[in-house]
Amino acid sequence: MKNKNTLKVRFLGGVGEIGKNMTALEYGKDIIIIDAGLTFPTSEMPGVDLVIPDITYLNQNKERIRGLFLTHGHEDHIGGVPYLLKEIDVPVYGTKLTLTLLDNKIREQGVKGARLFAVEPKSTIKAGVFSVEFVNVNHSIPGAVALSIQTPVGVVFHSGDFKVDLTPIGGEIIDLARLTEIGKKGVTLMLCESTNVERSGYSMSESVVTENLDRLFAEHKNKRLVIATFASNVYRIQQILNLAYKNKRKVALSGRSMINVIEASSKIGELTIPKDTIVEIDRIKNIPDKELVVISTGSQGEPMSALTRMASGESKDVTIGKNDVILISASPIPGNEKNIYQVINNLYRKGAEVCYESLEKIHASGHACQEELKIMHSLIRPKFFIPVHGEYRHLIKHVELAKEMGMRDSACLIADIGDTVELTQKSMKRREKFPSGSRLVDGLSVGEAPNVVRDRKYISAEGIVVAVCCISAESGLVLQEPDVIGKGAGLTDSQIAEMKSIIIKTFDSYNVKSAGDKTELRNILRKKLRDYVFKKIKKNPMILPIITEV
Amino acid sequence: MKNKNTLKVRFLGGVGEIGKNMTALEYGKDIIIIDAGLTFPTSEMPGVDLVIPDITYLNQNKERIRGLFLTHGHEDHIGGVPYLLKEIDVPVYGTKLTLTLLDNKIREQGVKGARLFAVEPKSTIKAGVFSVEFVNVNHSIPGAVALSIQTPVGVVFHSGDFKVDLTPIGGEIIDLARLTEIGKKGVTLMLCESTNVERSGYSMSESVVTENLDRLFAEHKNKRLVIATFASNVYRIQQILNLAYKNKRKVALSGRSMINVIEASSKIGELTIPKDTIVEIDRIKNIPDKELVVISTGSQGEPMSALTRMASGESKDVTIGKNDVILISASPIPGNEKNIYQVINNLYRKGAEVCYESLEKIHASGHACQEELKIMHSLIRPKFFIPVHGEYRHLIKHVELAKEMGMRDSACLIADIGDTVELTQKSMKRREKFPSGSRLVDGLSVGEAPNVVRDRKYISAEGIVVAVCCISAESGLVLQEPDVIGKGAGLTDSQIAEMKSIIIKTFDSYNVKSAGDKTELRNILRKKLRDYVFKKIKKNPMILPIITEV
Repeated sequence: MKNKNTLKVRFLGGVGEIGKNMTALEYGKDIIIIDAGLTFPTSEMPGVDLVIPDITYLNQNKERIRGLFLTHGHEDHIGGVPYLLKEIDVPVYGTKLTLTLLDNKIREQGVKGARLFAVEPKSTIKAGVFSVEFVNVNHSIPGAVALSIQTPVGVVFHSGDFKVDLTPIGGEIIDLARLTEIGKKGVTLMLCESTNVERSGYSMSESVVTENLDRLFAEHKNKRLVIATFASNVYRIQQILNLAYKNKRKVALSGRSMINVIEASSKIGELTIPKDTIVEIDRIKNIPDKELVVISTGSQGEPMSALTRMASGESKDVTIGKNDVILISASPIPGNEKNIYQVINNLYRKGAEVCYESLEKIHASGHACQEELKIMHSLIRPKFFIPVHGEYRHLIKHVELAKEMGMRDSACLIADIGDTVELTQKSMKRREKFPSGSRLVDGLSVGEAPNVVRDRKYISAEGIVVAVCCISAESGLVLQEPDVIGKGAGLTDSQIAEMKSIIIKTFDSYNVKSAGDKTELRNILRKKLRDYVFKKIKKNPMILPIITEV
Repeated sequence: MKNKNTLKVRFLGGVGEIGKNMTALEYGKDIIIIDAGLTFPTSEMPGVDLVIPDITYLNQNKERIRGLFLTHGHEDHIGGVPYLLKEIDVPVYGTKLTLTLLDNKIREQGVKGARLFAVEPKSTIKAGVFSVEFVNVNHSIPGAVALSIQTPVGVVFHSGDFKVDLTPIGGEIIDLARLTEIGKKGVTLMLCESTNVERSGYSMSESVVTENLDRLFAEHKNKRLVIATFASNVYRIQQILNLAYKNKRKVALSGRSMINVIEASSKIGELTIPKDTIVEIDRIKNIPDKELVVISTGSQGEPMSALTRMASGESKDVTIGKNDVILISASPIPGNEKNIYQVINNLYRKGAEVCYESLEKIHASGHACQEELKIMHSLIRPKFFIPVHGEYRHLIKHVELAKEMGMRDSACLIADIGDTVELTQKSMKRREKFPSGSRLVDGLSVGEAPNVVRDRKYISAEGIVVAVCCISAESGLVLQEPDVIGKGAGLTDSQIAEMKSIIIKTFDSYNVKSAGDKTELRNILRKKLRDYVFKKIKKNPMILPIITEV
């Protein structure tokens, strides 16, 4: 009975990590979900395509889910939605661009019958006991919103990803007036993003990027420009289109996601393409360098992306040379540094000039730095606070920032994935864990056993040796010379031959007939071969003895 | 005849890359080598321990090599020496600490009879036609030198790794007076390091680190301090020892390389350990937190290092808790960001406080920034210039800097590994390539075939499937149900069963007897199984069909 009048906040992803954001609010029989993102695999997960939250808990409570609310259209907020919709039929609410991008993903994944409802900022959606209001914020994609959620225990405010940009390019300034009102009326709990909490001051305005891009267009007016940025950064793309038009240059697009996003966002009016500006990429040979800009994907040095292919000379459309200036209008996401620097090195090798963030201010972060976070805290003034969207150290530092803003330590909580936080108007407590974690998407498989990835990782470091032996079921004698095949183990022919004779000797000294099943024999073979290999090459390949009785 | 009076500069490593520095100078019958470093494997080389330069060319010219000259004791300058000495017997010259560190490595590798000769800065060594003068420079390790090499075509000056620190901690200021004299007498070619050429201004002095560490000791006087840094940064360790002594704290060491380097450097007088300061790590339980400092390895988040084990709770000596402050006195080497941040997150999870470079100035780079590079250029004033120790973009930017300092474009050259540059007093030209590249050290194997690593990489992304079939040599009939084993492929039991029946069907429809060798049959099996697997799981595991005839 005690729990009946409490709100449960359940963290499915995005706390203690940057990526796969997902939170659920639960009151009585009603559940709503905020975002369903993905994250990209670490080097510990070779071969994995992407990682999404484990939604076992939601699956167990399917019929109670009243809606999925999306804060914006980035992968770490919508990338898990198609997988969710395959298992759970739930209405999805988001702004126009968010749903347009989502719709592309849903089609790719072959999900049928999705119910997507476009919502304008300042609108409110009823979902069970909840009323969810969309509040415009600034971010590096149009249509980003914070959510102000009326619940029976008061307002829960979720910042989404945001920054405060007082001179944005396209889109409105973050709705500070409405945030002020929400704060004044009283907020029980704030969930606020933490990505840039380690950075002091304010994030740079998108307008500064415009000024610098403008200058670079002028400085390189006789050269071809190739500009790499995130396909989803529609504001940035709008600036580039405008500058191209102003400088009488045509624009060609390279990279599938760039083409898709530009098509989608111009169709719904989020992007305005100046007349006669876009040309097909296969027509650029007819256009003088100084009259052309190529906008390209690959700002993170992704292996198959357009810019990476240009840099390695594998692009069929764009051949990089001395008359090219490449602007990388993005900063490296941690972990991508090596790839992006390799692309930059390769571009230089082709004779091009490259401008990138450590040298030019041609990228602005989409996330609030410390002073902007303080603005949010001072407007919302919540009773309770849980930082989200950050690794553990970010969350710790965000709580420190909240305390600097006057919050008590006991009013702040750091959540882990799988935590349930119980909220009343007067209290916030950590409660039971619920089933949670990661699901790995790997080809067509979703959420496969972790031993698959563990095996891959092991073999990638040590290699694998397959030892095949055909024996007589009757006599237990070896019928044919054993086969030994090493992959990734670096064994010499003479080592392979030696291993074959170890196998034969092992059979000779072992009474095969008495063995019953061959598990013990396989273990002996494995140990003998492993010892031999380690002595010879100081490596421990996975050893796979296969005994066939005929 | 034409080439007789020219000097050949051969680049074996360290150009177009950061790591495995190695250059050879060759005149007539004489060759000298500058440095022989190693580099750590990229994610493209799973399982590889380290990478060293291919020394085929030196092996082919063994008897002409007059000496190996080491600029300092970092891995990227001396890590390849043991492997070199295993193949080529050559006298090695370096300063005291460099040789002490090298000696440890040589012993570990079991190299016998190495001829190591300690040299003081300001001394000159004759080696064939060459005279090599050691010139003191500042760097993040004691005993770092530049080399001023008198050759028949004039002086070749190699900067080694350096910075200009006018307030160093221990050691002398870089020998600007001698550099000035060398420059005045005339330098034909300068090879100069490029690591920090993208950073404007000057590198921070080591004294600033002292001030900040001093402040942090004072701020946290009731807590235990754990300070992680590079074991080879003897100056930094000296500061920590001095601060500990001043603050009446004992010092314990964690991490094998930390213990080794401190032992080695104090033995030769490069490190002064204050009396009664060091305590054994297994005795720290008896010492109050506020009277203890632990100096530890692991500042790069290396998986098996002391700090990483403390962070994950696996250290048997140091249990991290609320009364610990961890100072990470190092900055992440590109590529290590994710690991180090994971360690920081884990330390926070244990309740500790963590200070790291993005928040506190407790690390100073050992490499010259732009203004320091300009000082070097302005003192040495070489006729010709080749930037070294940098990825391609660093080399390009270093040439730009040289041109800003007044050099002509034609006097600068960007070298690749394997390039021979021919030098006279009046000219510098790129000549023929020589055999060069990388050798992978992998367990006991050095320089193994690249297909081993390629196989590992492939299997790590896609997995492997072994299909074993035992057939009658006489009838060609399958004698037993085939074995199919997948590793890292994520196949279900029913998919495995289906693959077995595909194998049996393939044999049925194929006239085995007529096949002669089984290559064609194996190819057919591989294709059928690959098609099936791809259709089912959208992955392409390596397929290994093994047919045994009995």
